[in-house]
Amino acid sequence: MNGVTELRRLIDENNEKLLDLLSERGALVSHMRNLKEKKGEDLFDPRREHEMLERLIKANQGPFPDEVIRSLFKEVFKASLGLMSRKTIESLRVYRSPGAKDKVIDVSGVTLGRYPQYIAGPCSVEGLDELDAVAAGLSRQGVRLLRGGAYKPRTSPYSFQGMGEEGLRILEEVATRHGMVSVTEVLDTRSAELVAAHAGILQIGTRNMSNFELLKEVGRIGKPVLLKRGFMATLDEFLNAAEYIMAAGNNDIILCERGIRTFVKSTRNTLDISAVPLLKKNTYLPVIVDVSHAVGRKDLLEPLAAAAFAAGADGVMIEVHHDPLVAKSDAEQQLTVNEFAALAESVRRIIPGAAPAPVKRMEDVKCV
Amino acid sequence: MNGVTELRRLIDENNEKLLDLLSERGALVSHMRNLKEKKGEDLFDPRREHEMLERLIKANQGPFPDEVIRSLFKEVFKASLGLMSRKTIESLRVYRSPGAKDKVIDVSGVTLGRYPQYIAGPCSVEGLDELDAVAAGLSRQGVRLLRGGAYKPRTSPYSFQGMGEEGLRILEEVATRHGMVSVTEVLDTRSAELVAAHAGILQIGTRNMSNFELLKEVGRIGKPVLLKRGFMATLDEFLNAAEYIMAAGNNDIILCERGIRTFVKSTRNTLDISAVPLLKKNTYLPVIVDVSHAVGRKDLLEPLAAAAFAAGADGVMIEVHHDPLVAKSDAEQQLTVNEFAALAESVRRIIPGAAPAPVKRMEDVKCV
Amino acid sequence: MNGVTELRRLIDENNEKLLDLLSERGALVSHMRNLKEKKGEDLFDPRREHEMLERLIKANQGPFPDEVIRSLFKEVFKASLGLMSRKTIESLRVYRSPGAKDKVIDVSGVTLGRYPQYIAGPCSVEGLDELDAVAAGLSRQGVRLLRGGAYKPRTSPYSFQGMGEEGLRILEEVATRHGMVSVTEVLDTRSAELVAAHAGILQIGTRNMSNFELLKEVGRIGKPVLLKRGFMATLDEFLNAAEYIMAAGNNDIILCERGIRTFVKSTRNTLDISAVPLLKKNTYLPVIVDVSHAVGRKDLLEPLAAAAFAAGADGVMIEVHHDPLVAKSDAEQQLTVNEFAALAESVRRIIPGAAPAPVKRMEDVKCV
Amino acid sequence: MNGVTELRRLIDENNEKLLDLLSERGALVSHMRNLKEKKGEDLFDPRREHEMLERLIKANQGPFPDEVIRSLFKEVFKASLGLMSRKTIESLRVYRSPGAKDKVIDVSGVTLGRYPQYIAGPCSVEGLDELDAVAAGLSRQGVRLLRGGAYKPRTSPYSFQGMGEEGLRILEEVATRHGMVSVTEVLDTRSAELVAAHAGILQIGTRNMSNFELLKEVGRIGKPVLLKRGFMATLDEFLNAAEYIMAAGNNDIILCERGIRTFVKSTRNTLDISAVPLLKKNTYLPVIVDVSHAVGRKDLLEPLAAAAFAAGADGVMIEVHHDPLVAKSDAEQQLTVNEFAALAESVRRIIPGAAPAPVKRMEDVKCV
Repeated sequence: MNGVTELRRLIDENNEKLLDLLSERGALVSHMRNLKEKKGEDLFDPRREHEMLERLIKANQGPFPDEVIRSLFKEVFKASLGLMSRKTIESLRVYRSPGAKDKVIDVSGVTLGRYPQYIAGPCSVEGLDELDAVAAGLSRQGVRLLRGGAYKPRTSPYSFQGMGEEGLRILEEVATRHGMVSVTEVLDTRSAELVAAHAGILQIGTRNMSNFELLKEVGRIGKPVLLKRGFMATLDEFLNAAEYIMAAGNNDIILCERGIRTFVKSTRNTLDISAVPLLKKNTYLPVIVDVSHAVGRKDLLEPLAAAAFAAGADGVMIEVHHDPLVAKSDAEQQLTVNEFAALAESVRRIIPGAAPAPVKRMEDVKCV
Repeated sequence: MNGVTELRRLIDENNEKLLDLLSERGALVSHMRNLKEKKGEDLFDPRREHEMLERLIKANQGPFPDEVIRSLFKEVFKASLGLMSRKTIESLRVYRSPGAKDKVIDVSGVTLGRYPQYIAGPCSVEGLDELDAVAAGLSRQGVRLLRGGAYKPRTSPYSFQGMGEEGLRILEEVATRHGMVSVTEVLDTRSAELVAAHAGILQIGTRNMSNFELLKEVGRIGKPVLLKRGFMATLDEFLNAAEYIMAAGNNDIILCERGIRTFVKSTRNTLDISAVPLLKKNTYLPVIVDVSHAVGRKDLLEPLAAAAFAAGADGVMIEVHHDPLVAKSDAEQQLTVNEFAALAESVRRIIPGAAPAPVKRMEDVKCV
Repeated sequence: MNGVTELRRLIDENNEKLLDLLSERGALVSHMRNLKEKKGEDLFDPRREHEMLERLIKANQGPFPDEVIRSLFKEVFKASLGLMSRKTIESLRVYRSPGAKDKVIDVSGVTLGRYPQYIAGPCSVEGLDELDAVAAGLSRQGVRLLRGGAYKPRTSPYSFQGMGEEGLRILEEVATRHGMVSVTEVLDTRSAELVAAHAGILQIGTRNMSNFELLKEVGRIGKPVLLKRGFMATLDEFLNAAEYIMAAGNNDIILCERGIRTFVKSTRNTLDISAVPLLKKNTYLPVIVDVSHAVGRKDLLEPLAAAAFAAGADGVMIEVHHDPLVAKSDAEQQLTVNEFAALAESVRRIIPGAAPAPVKRMEDVKCV
Repeated sequence: MNGVTELRRLIDENNEKLLDLLSERGALVSHMRNLKEKKGEDLFDPRREHEMLERLIKANQGPFPDEVIRSLFKEVFKASLGLMSRKTIESLRVYRSPGAKDKVIDVSGVTLGRYPQYIAGPCSVEGLDELDAVAAGLSRQGVRLLRGGAYKPRTSPYSFQGMGEEGLRILEEVATRHGMVSVTEVLDTRSAELVAAHAGILQIGTRNMSNFELLKEVGRIGKPVLLKRGFMATLDEFLNAAEYIMAAGNNDIILCERGIRTFVKSTRNTLDISAVPLLKKNTYLPVIVDVSHAVGRKDLLEPLAAAAFAAGADGVMIEVHHDPLVAKSDAEQQLTVNEFAALAESVRRIIPGAAPAPVKRMEDVKCV
């Protein structure tokens, strides 16, 4: 056993010396940063890094193979660069800093992030009476957030593209009438101001998650943004999209998981339920789940809404239509108001504490 | 309006005549089936179908384009063939027939399918004392199903491949000692009998979901089978894999969703939570979720276990190890017994009625 | 055999009667269309369809089960609706009509679609001298199409976002100097006109393939568009994106396969090589392959460029930088001019007739 | 500039000292390995590593944050463990060692890996005359490798499962008659010996790539193995599957890319063409492409076969049937012999030097 004990002691010493050298390097690199910043020079110098690596490889006598030395020093360089740069991954504004409290977004007294909520309404605004019927029904169920598209991004240029500005006016009128907050999609930088003038919350759709100019624009405008995850986006890309909005000065962001594209065919998309706790853990923003677009069929909405709340979601978005059979878009996945009421009741039975409870929530709404 | 009304009447008549013709065809085809079966001839005759299509295309005068006629008649032919064949999609044994009750699998008094359960234990059996420590702890938490691998399918041939037969004996001894039912993986047709002699439930792993010879063999043996979904399998393929076991005479099957492979990198796999209600709806078998393999990290197990039960799962499988830091496989995703106890308590708080309640369940266990 | 022969005759008769009824229906439906169009009514009437189905199910006496009848009539209804609508799938303008010739796009005498071409240049325009060095080198290799980004869509808001308008001016100057045609990306509807004033071909990047407002805008502007496939887009969605541009009046579209997102990790994306012959077959547009973004590493560009041309691509896009080690974006995937020259020579050796042959092509270039 | 120059010198010194310490550590760790191996102890000691990390974190005074120190030392520990272990990634037998020559597999004089080849034949062996017709036709085209399944892995237990042992005998007889080498699939460890007694090359299908017991068994038997990539396997997993065969003593392995499962719907699978140059680069084994299963449709086989050879494939596998219309499996993707001949001629026109040239190859075949 003697040999092993002695070797361990020597390795411990080696550890300490490595730590000292690394700390020394950290100090050198901090000086370098100060110098470079004064001169306005780039912190990362790929040529210099390349030369250092070449010299080290030349000097390497083993026993570590060259590739291992190269890879270890690349890690050291990366860590040094991390020290130098102001905006590292850890410092994205969207990330939760230690001890940070969950953000609560408050629009005219309706909150997201304080307790669970439904965001419901038709896929598209199709008319004043139609929307009013849905909003009245949802309102009776305690729903305070009304969704409805005025500009619709459709795969085909020949599909119904939404009612446009008239749709915005209808949405605003109906939301006001029922004391609800409206959520509607923005498609173009040129019309973002117009949408913001009529809506409570601006939605960035899944196809526009990486439309960075649009993200900057809704960041600049400053109204709360419901940002949908791209159906092909990693969580890292999703958070960087939110960062675009924050970098433009707007922190009122609601993150929305809405299903990703996979090989699975039984549902329209695959609901990535793990994204909910991951986003809650890594950010301080409200996280919601759009179950309707995740699966694209009515028969799974109830268990998935329950699962979303159980996983910690702050809200569930569901498409509800006054008469789904004649809906101009997404006909097969929209619920009637009665079906929605039944769903909400079932969900409350499964997860009593974690699901929206309409009556109590009503008090929360100021008269608008 | 007159014209539209009249046209509608004519279209209704056309509908009725089409229905009559289709029913007539159904009768003709049923006769054909009887004749063919007597002669032992194949029901599907691609040449004949090809000729019929050619003749119809030749006769087509419009207004439907040829492709539309071809496609409509292919549907008619397919429907006719469906009438002829005994084993259509609808008649797979694995499918839930109308009004069918949920299957309850009972192994020595421990049930799956009656109320929610945990299946827990280490990734691999690593020794008698080690497994006993885990089983004792789980047992105190009311867990009645003990998992543990004796034969491990590992990506590299140089990784730990499991304790083999000795592992089986340890698993049996420990399960018996604590009145638990063991679940362990079968890797090879040649050793399936041996595994069955020691284990309560035979597991087919995700890599072997389409190892059809192995499915036939565990079907023949007749012990309950926990069938994991292939990480690349559609639900249709999953149900056909279960059908292989049923076709060999064994209906005691537990379906296990364990995550699928997608582009997402933040979790090891992507938990396809929608599969739970879909499998419950389409089959009458117990459905469980292996949350450990779905995500491959400890920090998401609690919200996902809650989500799985909320979505209707009959069980949740979790890897629990006596000392995860030194686990021979899956070290980063296994919980300690204490961590498992905390998880179970949290899950019960979120979904009181839908989560396993250890004390009540204990009465359910006969002494073995 | 008698019975079978007789049954076949009866089935043939049944076929003919079905065909007659379907054709009759086609005629009725065409009348209906004319009536409805005069009144400006919607062609699709989901309520009416719903009622017809209910009536048919009620009338169904077997032997076909109700689901089969429902599904067959849905096909009939769909075919009828197809007859009624002007813009069916088959009539998308982007689709190749029978006998249509391949489209050749000609920009100042440089063609795409006549013979194979390279489109090469740096990821981003980084300065006048830098771009000039690359353009001079490429020009000597017979490359006539110069790529370079002035507006860069970057995952992080803190990454280099391109030189903007200055980059556009540099690109124009360098392209003019070397008699090349420039290709550069458009990110925003508000700056599309500006980009068009400086560039020969407007690129829509992979993240903006479904930015429909941007597609309409480049359609309206009318300059040739290089449309990249979304990295998570089906070919159907890709063709509909092209259709947006055509519907706005612009048929000069180059389709670009650039890799899709899959579970594979050894390359940045997965080059969907099958897309090349599929797009060539289904459309009449030039099809190119961006091999640099498809794999994101230098060592695979040569075999993949050869594969792309062998599969029928009209062009291959490759990132070439004056000094890849210090590139501001995509450093690891850009070639030097010499590496590009070696690649082009190797590709010509593998597929002599199908690869670009610089000298001959030179004659093709008018002085600009 | 002075400050920067001086800091650079100090950083260079720091580099050198780090290198010295790392080399010293390498020596210590090598001693440790020798000691541990004598005692038969495990090289990896997670507890010790855990303790070292805790001590280092305690000692860390900055400026690097604790996470960075933890991550850097983990890299150092991993590198050390790499030194200790005999079987690191770099030392997998399947990897190409520097300067290694490409392996040529020779079965009765027919080679794979020397020049491009086709492997062709029906999906399933369906009868003696049927197979003979195909083999005669292919033989006239210079094809020397005859594929045909006797045991078929089918999604449904009620689909045709192959002719079994009779199929093996037919395949052997026909291959012998035409001087061809047969390739056929092995499904079960229990029948592997039987298949090996009749076939020239044993195929492991895509669903069995991770059936490790079967891999060990064909490794033990020693006949050449055509290993298909799992349709959801990374290249790393693919190479480890080959390593299972090599570890069991068999180096005669042909790697086969056959398409992966993605979100794309226009082809049955997505041909991962980049896998060809990646596998050629990383291993010394012959690499082929199964274009029929990759796309599942006839109209794309020609451009994809050309692309495969252009990318460097040693062979292309294509399903050819005596009468595809009546094929018992894969009817829609099999070519007739004449269609195959036309394909081969087109491919030779596109890539003259890289495609199989039947006549010259004939001389290569010894009489068997």
